[in-house]
Amino acid sequence: MSERALCVIGLGLIGGSLLRAAEGAGWKVRGTATSEADVTAAREAGFDVMSSIEDVLADADDDALVVLAVPLPAVVDVLAAVAQHAPHCRLTDVVSVKQPVAAAVERLAPSARYVGGHPMAGTSASGWAAGSATLFRGAPWVVGSDDGADPVVWTQVAQLALDCGAHVVPADAADHDAAVARISHLPHLLAAVLASVGADGGPLAMALSAGSFTDGTRVAASRPDLVRAMCEGNRSALLEAVDDALGRLGAARGSLASTGALEATIRAGHLARRSFDAARGAARDDTVPINDTVPINDTVPIDLTTAGALTRLRELGQQGGRVIALHHTRCQVLL
Amino acid sequence: MSERALCVIGLGLIGGSLLRAAEGAGWKVRGTATSEADVTAAREAGFDVMSSIEDVLADADDDALVVLAVPLPAVVDVLAAVAQHAPHCRLTDVVSVKQPVAAAVERLAPSARYVGGHPMAGTSASGWAAGSATLFRGAPWVVGSDDGADPVVWTQVAQLALDCGAHVVPADAADHDAAVARISHLPHLLAAVLASVGADGGPLAMALSAGSFTDGTRVAASRPDLVRAMCEGNRSALLEAVDDALGRLGAARGSLASTGALEATIRAGHLARRSFDAARGAARDDTVPINDTVPINDTVPIDLTTAGALTRLRELGQQGGRVIALHHTRCQVLL
Repeated sequence: MSERALCVIGLGLIGGSLLRAAEGAGWKVRGTATSEADVTAAREAGFDVMSSIEDVLADADDDALVVLAVPLPAVVDVLAAVAQHAPHCRLTDVVSVKQPVAAAVERLAPSARYVGGHPMAGTSASGWAAGSATLFRGAPWVVGSDDGADPVVWTQVAQLALDCGAHVVPADAADHDAAVARISHLPHLLAAVLASVGADGGPLAMALSAGSFTDGTRVAASRPDLVRAMCEGNRSALLEAVDDALGRLGAARGSLASTGALEATIRAGHLARRSFDAARGAARDDTVPINDTVPINDTVPIDLTTAGALTRLRELGQQGGRVIALHHTRCQVLL
Repeated sequence: MSERALCVIGLGLIGGSLLRAAEGAGWKVRGTATSEADVTAAREAGFDVMSSIEDVLADADDDALVVLAVPLPAVVDVLAAVAQHAPHCRLTDVVSVKQPVAAAVERLAPSARYVGGHPMAGTSASGWAAGSATLFRGAPWVVGSDDGADPVVWTQVAQLALDCGAHVVPADAADHDAAVARISHLPHLLAAVLASVGADGGPLAMALSAGSFTDGTRVAASRPDLVRAMCEGNRSALLEAVDDALGRLGAARGSLASTGALEATIRAGHLARRSFDAARGAARDDTVPINDTVPINDTVPIDLTTAGALTRLRELGQQGGRVIALHHTRCQVLL
């Protein structure tokens, strides 16, 4: 068994970038895709790419970490192949929701040693050609830290993320899905709503629009099928986030209609954005040269093989902590 | 009387940029401000700036176009001074709502020959130091085309906008306010709501946030008092836009909860944003070298002194048209 062998299924923007980044970091990589164009392009770039998922999964039970890098609607078919050809493999994924993938693994490939993952990186482009070995640099990469996660697989997934230049955010599937509903899926939905409300104003409104409208609707230009798959796949968490937004917007509406004041809404949003900027600025400062410059005293050491390690990792993740280094089963978490 | 004399009251970002741009285009400019720092800085830059509004308004009845370049809450005090020192002056403004300013002029300075204006340009910075002679280049500049507008004053305000490098969008006060509610005030409100909903997700959500959240909340970083003045000053139009957004977001919520589908919302938003991009791209192509390259056959000539001219200008503005050249009282409108 090789701990640094990787088998990537799906070679679009994320899978294709992963193949490049992992090879650059010394992993032995192979892959497959259903898109003939992606297969051809990846082969021409010199990668070991097979046309059939059976071939790429051969021996994967023993020798590779398997990565599901397909959109959520395609996960079921890939898992059926995994169950048939590599039922006990080490398995992760890069899909943007975690509970539906975990449920599908439980149902279709229950013997796989699965630890979910989600690199928070992307562009509005798609396909192998849009990928890059540097896509994940400085990005957060969620590694599933649900109770019962296999420490060996967890460590390998986390090491893969670190090797790609990302930093590892530990979270369980439910916490992940609740967080991305608020900071990714709701923003896509609000962008769609704003674009439609603006268009309802006709050509005059469009002619007058400036930065606030352009920025607020940018992601409405993304591929609708991908946005739908992401948002609809996270239904219950997104409903909660939408209800929060509806409540806040409804309160602003009531205040504007009755007293004419929007102070509470605008002040709260301003403070939230300013503290986001402050935290983001602080995080950026110490992201790049992280292993060299962070004194060991500022980090929390956690041994994954001890009792309560996953609980502690999740707690630190909820507080904004991230894993910045691994030594066998020991994590250094920066908070 | 000099047709190219300008008297700017308020020397912040917009007023200060206007002083610079108009002087660069050959206008004889003078100004005043209540901020001592702005007065000093403008004087040091060589401009004819007075400390008192009485002094700057002396002889303005006869010799200058007066510009109100103060935030909405300060308009009342400035109009009282105008009524006292230059009651019959030619008057315009650069405030981000038009109906409240028109109502205040009607009440406080009813003899002024007022034509409203609104250059759609700005940055998140403020004050004289943030201004620039190039701020208005390529920007839409609404010129109030309500029934009864004085053709002489309308032409001067439009010429000022063209001289500053802007293009003139004709609209009446109500249409202007309805449009900016949708493409400026609602985006600010949604950004505030989204920032708060994201922050409710705690440090984990903030750690995972990427481009969709960053873009969608950018304008929540703007000065809350300015955002409030702008949004609260456009109460009834903003209520309509908020209701449109609440209706669309509520419909998405209902669809997600019942069938699980977001197709209608996401598809409509995507189409709206794509046609916005297409229109914006087309507009940008012919904005810069406009007077030289647009064949006269592609424009609509309108003589402001003929009956129905303002109605026709408003219709063209509603269709996305803009005035790109003036010859005395004749406008060339590009549609």
